[in-house]
Amino acid sequence: MSDAQRIPATRLRTFTERVFAAAGYSEVAAERAADVLLWASLRGVDTHGVRNLKPYYWDRIVGGQINVEAQLITEQDSLTAARCNGQGGMGIALAHDAMNLAICKAADTGVGIVNVRNLHHLGPAGYFANLAVRHGMLGICMTGHFFGKGHPIGVAPINGAMAMFSTNPLSFAVPCGKRPTFLLDMSTSVCPVNRAEMYGQAQIPIPDGWAKDAQGRMTNDGSQGRIFYPLGGEAVTGGYKGVGLSMLVSILSGVLSQGWDLDTANSDSAETSYHQATMGHFFAAIKIDSFMPFDRFKQAMDAFVDSIQTSLRIDPDQPIHYPGFPEHSVRQERIDLGIPADQRLLDEFGRLAKEANISCPL
Amino acid sequence: MSDAQRIPATRLRTFTERVFAAAGYSEVAAERAADVLLWASLRGVDTHGVRNLKPYYWDRIVGGQINVEAQLITEQDSLTAARCNGQGGMGIALAHDAMNLAICKAADTGVGIVNVRNLHHLGPAGYFANLAVRHGMLGICMTGHFFGKGHPIGVAPINGAMAMFSTNPLSFAVPCGKRPTFLLDMSTSVCPVNRAEMYGQAQIPIPDGWAKDAQGRMTNDGSQGRIFYPLGGEAVTGGYKGVGLSMLVSILSGVLSQGWDLDTANSDSAETSYHQATMGHFFAAIKIDSFMPFDRFKQAMDAFVDSIQTSLRIDPDQPIHYPGFPEHSVRQERIDLGIPADQRLLDEFGRLAKEANISCPL
Repeated sequence: MSDAQRIPATRLRTFTERVFAAAGYSEVAAERAADVLLWASLRGVDTHGVRNLKPYYWDRIVGGQINVEAQLITEQDSLTAARCNGQGGMGIALAHDAMNLAICKAADTGVGIVNVRNLHHLGPAGYFANLAVRHGMLGICMTGHFFGKGHPIGVAPINGAMAMFSTNPLSFAVPCGKRPTFLLDMSTSVCPVNRAEMYGQAQIPIPDGWAKDAQGRMTNDGSQGRIFYPLGGEAVTGGYKGVGLSMLVSILSGVLSQGWDLDTANSDSAETSYHQATMGHFFAAIKIDSFMPFDRFKQAMDAFVDSIQTSLRIDPDQPIHYPGFPEHSVRQERIDLGIPADQRLLDEFGRLAKEANISCPL
Repeated sequence: MSDAQRIPATRLRTFTERVFAAAGYSEVAAERAADVLLWASLRGVDTHGVRNLKPYYWDRIVGGQINVEAQLITEQDSLTAARCNGQGGMGIALAHDAMNLAICKAADTGVGIVNVRNLHHLGPAGYFANLAVRHGMLGICMTGHFFGKGHPIGVAPINGAMAMFSTNPLSFAVPCGKRPTFLLDMSTSVCPVNRAEMYGQAQIPIPDGWAKDAQGRMTNDGSQGRIFYPLGGEAVTGGYKGVGLSMLVSILSGVLSQGWDLDTANSDSAETSYHQATMGHFFAAIKIDSFMPFDRFKQAMDAFVDSIQTSLRIDPDQPIHYPGFPEHSVRQERIDLGIPADQRLLDEFGRLAKEANISCPL
C-alpha cells in the first residue's frame, strides 16, 4: 500500500461504528464489531481489518446472508463446556459472548470451552483468544468452514483436486509480564485467502508456494488463487500436517458444534451427505493459576521470549520475533500515525457511506 | 528398510518387556513401556518404536540420566487441572498416569488438563492422546523441550542461527464410528530429528527443506542434520507459523508445568537465565457428550472423513488419507506379517540382550 494515506484510528472507528449502526445494530453491538476490525487494522493485520467492512459484513447484511437480529443461544451447557447457536448472525458482533462464557467457566472451574455453530465470519481469531489474557488465562480461538462437496476457493487435502477447507485459522494467546502478549494467530494454510486477494488488488505478485489457480497450476497472481497450499506445502515438506491441522480446526469448530446436516436415511452412504452451511467456531480459556502462581508464569514467559529474541542471528541486522511482537510494534506506530488506506479502499468507503446514508469523515 | 526381516510383534513385545524388567521396572511398568513402543512400531511409526529401545531408554537408564525409581507426583491439583513432577523418570512408563488423570477429570467435569515437568521422552505423543478415545473423549498430548542457550540439534526461530527447540510434537485424537480414529500426531518441524537419523543410517538422502547442517547449509544427509526446518520452511512459506506452534508446545508443556529455573537475582536480565533441564509434557481430555450425543458425533466424523477420502483426486491411482488412516492399515499388515527390523537393529538388539543378560528370542 505504497500510495496509502493515513487515517486516524479514532475517525476510522467512528465511521465503522456508524456503518454497523446503519445496518441495524445497537450501539453496543456496533462498538463491539468495530472494535474487532480496528484491533486488526491497528496491529497491521489488514487482511482482517476495516478492509473487510463492506465485502464481508455490510454487503452480506444488505444481501440477507447475515441475520442482524441474531443472538447467541446456548443449546447445551455444563460447568466447563457449552455449545451455542449463532442464528446466522455476524461473528464480530456475537463471538464476544461465546468467549466471555468460556472465560466465566474458566474463572469458576479452571477451564472453559464453548463452541458455536451457525455464526458468520468473526474477523481475526486472535482478537477473541486475546480476551482471556487480562483475566490471567490462556485464550484459544479457532474458526472453520468445511465444504463436503468442495468450494471454489480454499485448501485441498493432499492429492485432492478440490478445495474443501477454509483456511481455518487457529489462535493462542498467552500473557507475558513486561513483554507484549504471545499471540499466535495463523491460518492453517501457507497464507489466508484474503492476503492473496490483497496482493492481487495491489498487483504485487504472490510468492511461489502460496496458491494454485483454477487449473491446478501454481500461480503468482493472487487474484487467480483458488487452491491454497496447506501449511507445509507439498506432502514431502509436511503439507499433510497443515491439512491435519485444518481438519482439526474443522472438527473442533464444526463437527463438535453440530454445525452440519447429515442424510441419515442411508447410514452406509453417509459420505455423500455431510453438509456444513455456515462457519463454526471454537473458544477456550485456561486459568494459569490452576497450574502455578500467575506472577511466576509471567516472569517465566518474559524470560522465555527474551531468550529467543536475544539468541544468535543469521542476519544480525534483522530481528528475531515471536508471535504478537511485531504486531505490537505496528500498533504503537498506527496509534500515532494513523491506519494506512489506499485510494481503492477510500473510494469503497465513499460508496459505502452513500449506501448507508451516513457522513464519511475520512 | 529393504533388507528388513519381519519379527512377530508378540516376540518383539516380550523382548522389550524383558529389557525393561532387566532395567529394574516392575512387571506392570515394563508392560506399559513396551506397549508404547510396540504401538508405534505396529503402526509403522518406526521413528518412535522399538528402534529407540537401546539409545533412548536402556542407555539412558544405564547411564543414570533416567531415574527408574521415579513416580508421578502431583504438585498442584484442582477439579479440572493438575501439574505433576515426573522426578526424572521415563515418560513411556509414567505418562499413562498423567493422561489417565486428565481422563478422570474430564469424566467428572467435561475437561481435564494435566501437565508434567521433569519427565523424559514419552515416545509417540499420539499413544497418549489416543488413550482418551475409548472413553468417548478427544485426547491431546504435546511434549517439548526448550533450550534457552541453544542445543546442538533442533529447530531454530526464523533468522535464528541456533537450535532452541526440540521438534516439539503435538497430537490430537478424535474418535470416529466405523472409521479408524482421527489421530494427528506431528512434530512441529518438517520432520522429526529421528526420521532424519533413520534416513542417514539407511543411507537414503533426505529431501530438500528438512534440515541444515552444522554450517547452516541445507543438507541431504540425514546424519548431518543439525538445524531442522519448522513446519512451513522459510518465512515466506509460513515457517514462522511452525516456530509459533513449537513455542506454543514449549509454553504448554514447559513454561506452564514450571519445568524451568530462572535466575531471579536480576529481573531485568532474565533473558539469560531461562533454563529447562528436562522435557515437559501436556495432556488433555475433552468429553464429547458435553457438546452433543457421542453417537451423533461418531456418525458425523465418519461422514466427515468419508467426504474427504472420496473427493476428487489429482492422481486417481493414489488415495487421499486423513491422519491415522494409513497407520491403521499398516497396523493390520504388521500384526499379520510382523514388524520389519533391519540387520543393524537386530545386531543392536543382540548387544542389548547381552548387556541386559536376557535371552534374545528374535
